[in-house]
Parts: sequence; structure tokens; C-alpha cells
Amino acid sequence: MKVGILGTGMVGNAIGTKLVETGHQTMMGSRTAGSEAGREWKKSTGGKGQIGTFTDAAAFGEIIFDCTNGANSIAALRQAGAQNLRGKILVQVSNPLDFSKGMPPSLTVCNTDSLGEQIQREFPEARVVKALNTMNCRVMVEPSLVPGDHNLFLCGNDAAAKAEVTKHLGAWFGWKPGNVIDLGDITGSRGTEMFLPLWLRLFGMFGDATFNIQVVRGG
Amino acid sequence: MKVGILGTGMVGNAIGTKLVETGHQTMMGSRTAGSEAGREWKKSTGGKGQIGTFTDAAAFGEIIFDCTNGANSIAALRQAGAQNLRGKILVQVSNPLDFSKGMPPSLTVCNTDSLGEQIQREFPEARVVKALNTMNCRVMVEPSLVPGDHNLFLCGNDAAAKAEVTKHLGAWFGWKPGNVIDLGDITGSRGTEMFLPLWLRLFGMFGDATFNIQVVRGG
Repeated sequence: MKVGILGTGMVGNAIGTKLVETGHQTMMGSRTAGSEAGREWKKSTGGKGQIGTFTDAAAFGEIIFDCTNGANSIAALRQAGAQNLRGKILVQVSNPLDFSKGMPPSLTVCNTDSLGEQIQREFPEARVVKALNTMNCRVMVEPSLVPGDHNLFLCGNDAAAKAEVTKHLGAWFGWKPGNVIDLGDITGSRGTEMFLPLWLRLFGMFGDATFNIQVVRGG
Repeated sequence: MKVGILGTGMVGNAIGTKLVETGHQTMMGSRTAGSEAGREWKKSTGGKGQIGTFTDAAAFGEIIFDCTNGANSIAALRQAGAQNLRGKILVQVSNPLDFSKGMPPSLTVCNTDSLGEQIQREFPEARVVKALNTMNCRVMVEPSLVPGDHNLFLCGNDAAAKAEVTKHLGAWFGWKPGNVIDLGDITGSRGTEMFLPLWLRLFGMFGDATFNIQVVRGG
């Protein structure tokens, strides 16, 4: 499958590398073609990974992962182009973290709206599935780093898109379908994005990002 | 031990009833003395539970549980009186949920502040410990309703107060100390209060509030 990855940061790298390893044609996009981060990633994949602009990567992918810096995601997606997202699944991974006022980051949007919703509104023909945004990128692509069962949340307005993403998360990254929790429509993004302050606090206490949460239900 | 409970809703009821059952002198406070909810609770405890105003309950308690409606917590605590909270542990349970615009509720404060912080600032001599606010009240007082290990988060500026609350949560409600996660100072309230939208979404999907989360750590 041809996969477009938007963003050359840690998250884009982790997902892009895993996809190349599992045999997918993968193009990583950034603001400018041939960015240093992009070229380093391409080199790390032995030249198998491809690089280009946001527009190139979005046009290339049959499915797109948005791994951009959350504060700039909408600008990056505009550069990618609505026509290159139309009808495609857009796995919206990034969180609207605002580091401009120092640590800890706050959210650029929350409470009565979310980045996932903003993106679905701005690109109504993209099939946005918010997913993977409640954990570190190493855990995203290798859930067995955390022992036992633990959960991945997703949400979106398109049930078929969510089913397809769930299948890919299993086949590509090793997520058991039973550990994927569907939170309903895209407004569920508020919940998973607003989990970030708790995640960041736990990260600070543990000094280690290799953790996740499991939802445990009573009888 | 003499315990003051502020608030006669579900949360105050659950905590108050458990405390009476475990042999503590417990007074539940509300805006007016002899409220209907208060009288019903007193009757449900066979007359062992005491009732009064917010001021009465705060003056009575050696330790106070704030189980008020989060949107009105500060007003309720002002009625309780700073002099009745001075030097005492205030277990701040309520969440700043705003139901005024319908379901789902939003938060009256979040992102760069929290109810826990607002209350600690307003009552600097109270030893505020934010705790128990990430789960349903039945689970708060009977964690074994959810199988296996799962976590309770607390935070606050006073380490001795947090240690004492951890001890009480174990002795009174059955929380294993190893399942209590200390998130540091009171600004950790942002994380646990902003978890509510995810909790509410899960509650909506499950149709059942008997669940909690467990933090699972990798090697």
C-alpha cells in the first residue's frame, strides 16, 4: 500500500520507519522537499523511504498519517491540498500542543472543540480518523513494549474508515482489535487530546515514555 | 475521626455512607441546614450520619471532602469559611463540569488552570489534595468493583497531606498504596480534571460507570 506521512518529527519517523520495514511504499512529506530531517530518515531506511513536500506525500499516499506539529497541522494540511486528501483516510495523530509559553505545553484548542474536529471541518471530504495520539510514538508502532493489554482510542465520523484503520493498526503495528476502543464520532478527539496533560504529567513523574493506559471494566 | 463532607449529591452520599459504615463521625453539609437530600442521607444511615450547613460540616471535620457541584465549589467553600478549612486537609473531589450548555458537559476551567488550583489559591491555608476525581463514586469507595489493579491519581502542594490521604484511602476505601499515583503539586489537577471528557465518552460508549484506568509501564 502507498502511504503518505506528513511530518518529519519523531512521530513521522517512527511510523514511517515501521511502514518501510513492513514493506509499504512510504513517502514522508515536509514543508520543503529534501529537508534535512527527511533526507536523514530516507538514509536510515537504506533509501527505501521516499521524501517530498507535504503536497507530494499527500498526493502519493492512498492513506495519509498526519504527524505534523499540532500547532501547525492545519497549515501543513492546507499545503498538502484538499484535492490530495479527498476521499482518503487521514489518520490524524498530532496533538494541538502549544510550547510557545514554555513547559508544560498547553493545548491550542480544547474543551468545546479539538484539532481533530477542526481538521474534519476544514477538509470535509477527508475521512479523518483521530488515533494513536494518547501514547509515545515508540508504543504506537510497537505496542508490545508495554506488557499485557492496554488501549488505543480512535474516533471519526466514517465507520468504514475506522474499521480499515483498526485493521491496519493490527497488521502494521500489532494492535489487537480488542484493545482498540472506538469513541464514536470525531468529537471524541476532545477526550483523547485533553488526556495529554495527564500523559505529560505521568511522563514527567516516570521519566520514561514507555507506558500506556488500560481501561478496566467491572462486572 | 471526624469527617466533614461538603455536598449532598451522589459523590457526597457515597463517601459519607462509606465513612459512617467504617465507624467515622461524619457530617454532611449543604447550602441550607436540613436540606431534603441531607435528611434522606441521614435516614439512610440509620441516623448515624449528621447533617448541617457547609459551615457546620467544615467546622466539624478534622478532614474535609469537597464533593460539591464543581461549577459552584468555590462559592460552597466560601460559605464553609476559610477559618474552618485552615490547616485541614481538603480532599478536593469535584470536577469543574459545566452542564449549562447541555450534554456533554464542558469544563468551566482547564488547560492553563484548574479547579484544584483555584481552590488552593483561594484558600491558601487549606491543605488541598485533589483526588478521586477520575472515576465514578461507587468505584471511589469500593475499588474492588473493578477487577485487578487500577489507579487513583492525587496531587497537591503538601507532601504530608498527600501521605495522610493515601493512608486514609487505603484504610477507609480499600485503595492499595501501590495503586495510588502521586502527580506532584496541585497543578497536576489540570491533568486529572481534563481526563473527564475521555471518561465521559467511555461512560457513554459502555453505558456503565463501573470502570477505571490502569497505567501500564514498559520495561
